[in-house]
Amino acid sequence: MVAAAAILPELATQLVVPVAAAVGIAFAVLQWVLVSKVKVAPEPRGEGGSAAGGGAGAGGKDGASEYLIEEEEGLNDHNVVLKCAEIQTAISEGATSFLFTEYKYAGGFMTVFAVLIFVFLGSIEGFSTKSQPCHYSVGKTCKPALANAAFSTIAFVLGAVTSLVSGFLGMKIATYANARTTLEARKGVGKAFITAFRSGAVMGFLLAASGLFVLYVAINLFGLYYGDDWEGLFEAITGYGLGGSSMALFGRVGGGIYTKAADVGADLVGKVERNIPEDDPRNPAVIADNVGDNVGDIAGMGSDLFGSYAESSCAALVVASISSFGINHQFTPMMYPLLISSVGIIACLITTLFATDFFEVKEVDQIEPALKKQLIISTAVMTAGIALVSWLGLPYTFTIFNFGAQKTVHSWQLFLCVAVGLWAGLVIGFITEYYTSNAYSPVQDVADSCRTGAATNVIFGLALGYKSVIIPIFAIAFSIFLSFSLAAMYGVAVAALGMLSTIATGLAIDAYGPISDNAGGIAEMAGMSHRIRERTDALDAAGNTTAAIGKGFAIGSAALVSLALFGAFVSRAGITTVDVLTPNVFIGLLVGAMLPYWFSAMTMKSVGSAALKMVEEVRRQFNTIPGLMEGTAKPDYATCVKISTDASIKEMIPPGALVMLTPLIVGTFFGVETLSGVLAGALVSGVQIAISASNTGGAWDNAKKYIEAGASEHAKSLGPKGSDCHKAAVIGDTIGDPLKDTSGPSLNILIKLMAVESLVFAPFFATYGGILFKYL
Amino acid sequence: MVAAAAILPELATQLVVPVAAAVGIAFAVLQWVLVSKVKVAPEPRGEGGSAAGGGAGAGGKDGASEYLIEEEEGLNDHNVVLKCAEIQTAISEGATSFLFTEYKYAGGFMTVFAVLIFVFLGSIEGFSTKSQPCHYSVGKTCKPALANAAFSTIAFVLGAVTSLVSGFLGMKIATYANARTTLEARKGVGKAFITAFRSGAVMGFLLAASGLFVLYVAINLFGLYYGDDWEGLFEAITGYGLGGSSMALFGRVGGGIYTKAADVGADLVGKVERNIPEDDPRNPAVIADNVGDNVGDIAGMGSDLFGSYAESSCAALVVASISSFGINHQFTPMMYPLLISSVGIIACLITTLFATDFFEVKEVDQIEPALKKQLIISTAVMTAGIALVSWLGLPYTFTIFNFGAQKTVHSWQLFLCVAVGLWAGLVIGFITEYYTSNAYSPVQDVADSCRTGAATNVIFGLALGYKSVIIPIFAIAFSIFLSFSLAAMYGVAVAALGMLSTIATGLAIDAYGPISDNAGGIAEMAGMSHRIRERTDALDAAGNTTAAIGKGFAIGSAALVSLALFGAFVSRAGITTVDVLTPNVFIGLLVGAMLPYWFSAMTMKSVGSAALKMVEEVRRQFNTIPGLMEGTAKPDYATCVKISTDASIKEMIPPGALVMLTPLIVGTFFGVETLSGVLAGALVSGVQIAISASNTGGAWDNAKKYIEAGASEHAKSLGPKGSDCHKAAVIGDTIGDPLKDTSGPSLNILIKLMAVESLVFAPFFATYGGILFKYL
Repeated sequence: MVAAAAILPELATQLVVPVAAAVGIAFAVLQWVLVSKVKVAPEPRGEGGSAAGGGAGAGGKDGASEYLIEEEEGLNDHNVVLKCAEIQTAISEGATSFLFTEYKYAGGFMTVFAVLIFVFLGSIEGFSTKSQPCHYSVGKTCKPALANAAFSTIAFVLGAVTSLVSGFLGMKIATYANARTTLEARKGVGKAFITAFRSGAVMGFLLAASGLFVLYVAINLFGLYYGDDWEGLFEAITGYGLGGSSMALFGRVGGGIYTKAADVGADLVGKVERNIPEDDPRNPAVIADNVGDNVGDIAGMGSDLFGSYAESSCAALVVASISSFGINHQFTPMMYPLLISSVGIIACLITTLFATDFFEVKEVDQIEPALKKQLIISTAVMTAGIALVSWLGLPYTFTIFNFGAQKTVHSWQLFLCVAVGLWAGLVIGFITEYYTSNAYSPVQDVADSCRTGAATNVIFGLALGYKSVIIPIFAIAFSIFLSFSLAAMYGVAVAALGMLSTIATGLAIDAYGPISDNAGGIAEMAGMSHRIRERTDALDAAGNTTAAIGKGFAIGSAALVSLALFGAFVSRAGITTVDVLTPNVFIGLLVGAMLPYWFSAMTMKSVGSAALKMVEEVRRQFNTIPGLMEGTAKPDYATCVKISTDASIKEMIPPGALVMLTPLIVGTFFGVETLSGVLAGALVSGVQIAISASNTGGAWDNAKKYIEAGASEHAKSLGPKGSDCHKAAVIGDTIGDPLKDTSGPSLNILIKLMAVESLVFAPFFATYGGILFKYL
Repeated sequence: MVAAAAILPELATQLVVPVAAAVGIAFAVLQWVLVSKVKVAPEPRGEGGSAAGGGAGAGGKDGASEYLIEEEEGLNDHNVVLKCAEIQTAISEGATSFLFTEYKYAGGFMTVFAVLIFVFLGSIEGFSTKSQPCHYSVGKTCKPALANAAFSTIAFVLGAVTSLVSGFLGMKIATYANARTTLEARKGVGKAFITAFRSGAVMGFLLAASGLFVLYVAINLFGLYYGDDWEGLFEAITGYGLGGSSMALFGRVGGGIYTKAADVGADLVGKVERNIPEDDPRNPAVIADNVGDNVGDIAGMGSDLFGSYAESSCAALVVASISSFGINHQFTPMMYPLLISSVGIIACLITTLFATDFFEVKEVDQIEPALKKQLIISTAVMTAGIALVSWLGLPYTFTIFNFGAQKTVHSWQLFLCVAVGLWAGLVIGFITEYYTSNAYSPVQDVADSCRTGAATNVIFGLALGYKSVIIPIFAIAFSIFLSFSLAAMYGVAVAALGMLSTIATGLAIDAYGPISDNAGGIAEMAGMSHRIRERTDALDAAGNTTAAIGKGFAIGSAALVSLALFGAFVSRAGITTVDVLTPNVFIGLLVGAMLPYWFSAMTMKSVGSAALKMVEEVRRQFNTIPGLMEGTAKPDYATCVKISTDASIKEMIPPGALVMLTPLIVGTFFGVETLSGVLAGALVSGVQIAISASNTGGAWDNAKKYIEAGASEHAKSLGPKGSDCHKAAVIGDTIGDPLKDTSGPSLNILIKLMAVESLVFAPFFATYGGILFKYL
């Protein structure tokens, strides 16, 4: 076996990764400092819980000069600022309290699961503490299964905690930034954009850097025990991905139900029945709605993408560990996945400067192009970065484990794998934009179909979602074909990493959306002028598109990641073919393809039921609180927050259990072949529903915004707000809510989580699995 | 190899099959005679085009006594009868004219395709007329590829023509029966039920019997040329399935677009904007709507199920021909699939008597149980029938071809395969009923969600559809597992045949639905009393459920059939494994799973666009024809009929081309492995969308009917017609229309057709396929 070395020595690798992580964190802190210069409290008093940890740049140098830019009325109105601060505190407190409750329940589930991991994996060799011969490194001795069980459990907990912290920090940042964006909107759309975007960048860089850093530290610490047993080391490290994704599941599902129950409930009574605007402070569900954006779209998305990142790294590492890198103990090429992420942070840093420093957004119609440029620039810069890493970090020739055989690969082929993933991500991003932005004909057609009512709007919207699947699937298929052909499952894993390598930028433009949405809500609630609301609406419309793009990335990468994990699972389970022409595999495939439907049925129904409860409460308040409609009495926001919280906590358990127990049950009772079928089926079916659900929802939302904004002759002919067309559009928007923010994005996690869980439990299934067939 | 003989001698088999077919046709004629006793024309004058071919029992013995049963007013009102006759003629003429146009275009497409089949298959041995060594019967000589090409083409044309005739006859029967059902409704719900049900039975038995008969004749005629070359004979016969399904595709898609464009268009203006009842004669789209039921639900469904029947028979035959039956030339076991269908006709005949003679429907709430009993009785009787056929028609031990190897199977195992398919069909039927009938909580919950508007109705409806997939998929998976394990692909093929063995009853209760729907429409248009309309509505509500059940059968059997065809294709293409862990197969799987979305996007959009045109025309007529709303002027029905016709003809081509060209393109350029992936992906993904779409649509329709009927306290609290709840329910119903009647049921054909087409072209792909990979 060729054991050519990489150009980059081990010591340099040991430096590059943590330094890149440190740079990422420093850059996030810098952005935070810049955002924190916007003062929410006009007098020198504390900013409530939301300012925790953001004390850095408190006394900015141009604190006074800001008041000179009096582009807009109300800039010196201290009451408005006070009101914004108050609303911000309410949202932040609601979000914090919900996340604590969610984490408490999820934590209980995770603890049980951690015990399961330990028991299942430990039982493989009867909890023996004796070392065993290795599986792949023939003739060598590896650590006992019990050690792998213990370290997998630790990695699982580590992943879960990192995911939890990622989501929580994201929420904190977003609730810190929302009111600041509102206040900056008084000075113009450019200022507001910069604030929202910088806040998104804080989250993006913090997550990307900390995910990388924790993984790096874990590998090095675990390595102290494992020594030369890289096979066991990286098998244990996969627990990190499982932990991250498990937490993300609860974050996505719980947060998704929370946010949409509130949103749908608020809209149904407020917009449809009472004819009051969105985010009107008289609506009792309005705080719950704004809290929801932060716990669902921000915290959930943060956990989700962190999970994808962790899993694709783990998938690549575990395959590498049984390839020539691992067998020959070549540290630098072994760390290739981490090197890519390191360079990714730098590439994204450069990209961010294009939005914040090199160019300036001045007009409403420059927002979407500015965000789009971020995607293009990051992809272009990163392509060079990948080339560099592939040149320096890999030997020219090496071998990759390919289901029982070793396949020879060249470093430039691995460059192609990563690059095809990266560029496929860009294609998916653009297609998603095309289908969900109201600048193009698909959304305009959907808006136009509102002329004949809600029914045609829904029919056109569903058709749009179905159609939007085509090109992304071809893009994913092409990436898979190329990377799979060139470097087997390792190729697929690094293609996923390629797509996620610009995660910092992706998350930044993704988090930008809900922050803008919240900013609009705060403007409305604080009673700010129509012009300011228009600016935040423009930010928000672009945010809907970027949110859809973010979901497109999340799904695309999830597909690649799942396949890579699936491949790793199959390798670890010791099977060399997954033949559709066997009954075990085929029924797995069929049932697996059904799981996303089962899961969606649960989450959609949950949102529907919770929304019905919310509607009843909101109606009750409007009917029983005198002076509420007139604005003389305050609604009882807390009860609505409680309804959303209770519903989401209760309803997140069954879908969570479905996803987490399926691989265990199938693997234990039906064995690894059937489980392989289930994974493949869930993957190929889930990715379609996820893309179509998220694009349909995004399109309906923007069709509604298109009619509301009335920016063209065509749009004007459909509006204004309150017209029959607009009402039909609102119905579509409401239906789209659970599709795009609950069931759709949760499906990524379904397919990833089942795959990574199968991988972690693979040694157990390989030993004890399939008891039903064994005894029949 | 064991060559034990079956108990039944060849001569008996040669008698049983045609006799059973003859009995089926005779029974259909008898039912027709009974239906024709209801007189549509009070005076002795012709009944227009619709009576063609039904002249048999013109002078019934109790023609006069009918007038004695004066349960209801208007029984002697000759004007009503005349009006019914007039409407019936208009519907029948519209349907006939549309089908002729549809068949003309489809015929053009089919001709081109027939040429393609001949050229592609003939080219395999360079159009040589020399005999070649056989593929499977080692050492023997088989007919040249050119002969196979010619006979495949002939079989294709035969299948297409039979499918065309099946659909056309079904339409003729339905348009003959609709007004008769209306007139009988004057005498009570029981009389109307019997008329509608008998008419359905005419269609069911005619189709089942003629499908069997043509296949039987074709095998015997082709046998004259092929002699001992059964391999080539049954390979050529598969063209029959392809022809049937291709025609069905155009029937389903074209008819589906036609009917739903008219239905949606009529509802959007009539019910929503103008607040006039469904089927009001003032609505210009009302005739088009009623024509649509006949060309879409009747003709399309007839062609579809005929296609399934033909394909499952062909799949079983082609596998059998390379198993011990075929290799040892055992005629009786070879004809096992046809024997099952023969016994099925007799079993269904007995079953029908339970609905028409042994019991009587007297009350509205006996309709659904009566139809349900049909399913149970036919399944029970047929189980005994299968046991008999398996005992008499099969040797005790034989071998089945299983991807390169021969597998030993016992006759009782084959009995289990057929029985599991049959009973899985019953399970699917019951689950479908549970989720789509308004007698149970799922539909009632959907109706209840209308309290908060159309958005929650849609969310709940979509969730219901997703959920309704779970048990049917488990039922299908179990059938596949059992039959696949016991008798490989032959087992799956006969399981499909088992599910379809009661096709005569299935089609009868299925055709009953649109006939009742039409009857209600005619009652409304003829200005008959409210009580009569209530009776036809009750028939129609049960019809919605049976239509959903029929679709459930169609989808379940399509899944089994496709798998069997897929297996036959793989065998014929000479590959022994379809390994998901190869890039070729995996990308096929992913892209295949996307195809149903692409297809649905096309068909949904087509319905939407055509409906928009219809809406504009209907609005135009209401706005420009003076006296239309007052009922003093007649609308221009013909223009609406033309809009539906033009739209469906134009719009059926792209989805048709997608389905028919995909296997050709994939097979030719990417090869059989990728094509296998595409087939498997389309199958496992398509079946889910098809079930959920058809159940969601059925549930919405019946939720609306539940509110309209107001039969319970709960239902009353949601109604009456015109309430906000009801309006929300109408929106759901409208959205469900294209889901349940256009895209959903067409997906069956997508998955079946791609599989049978691959099978027919398998020899070509095996020789020339995958040119892209070959030259890369």
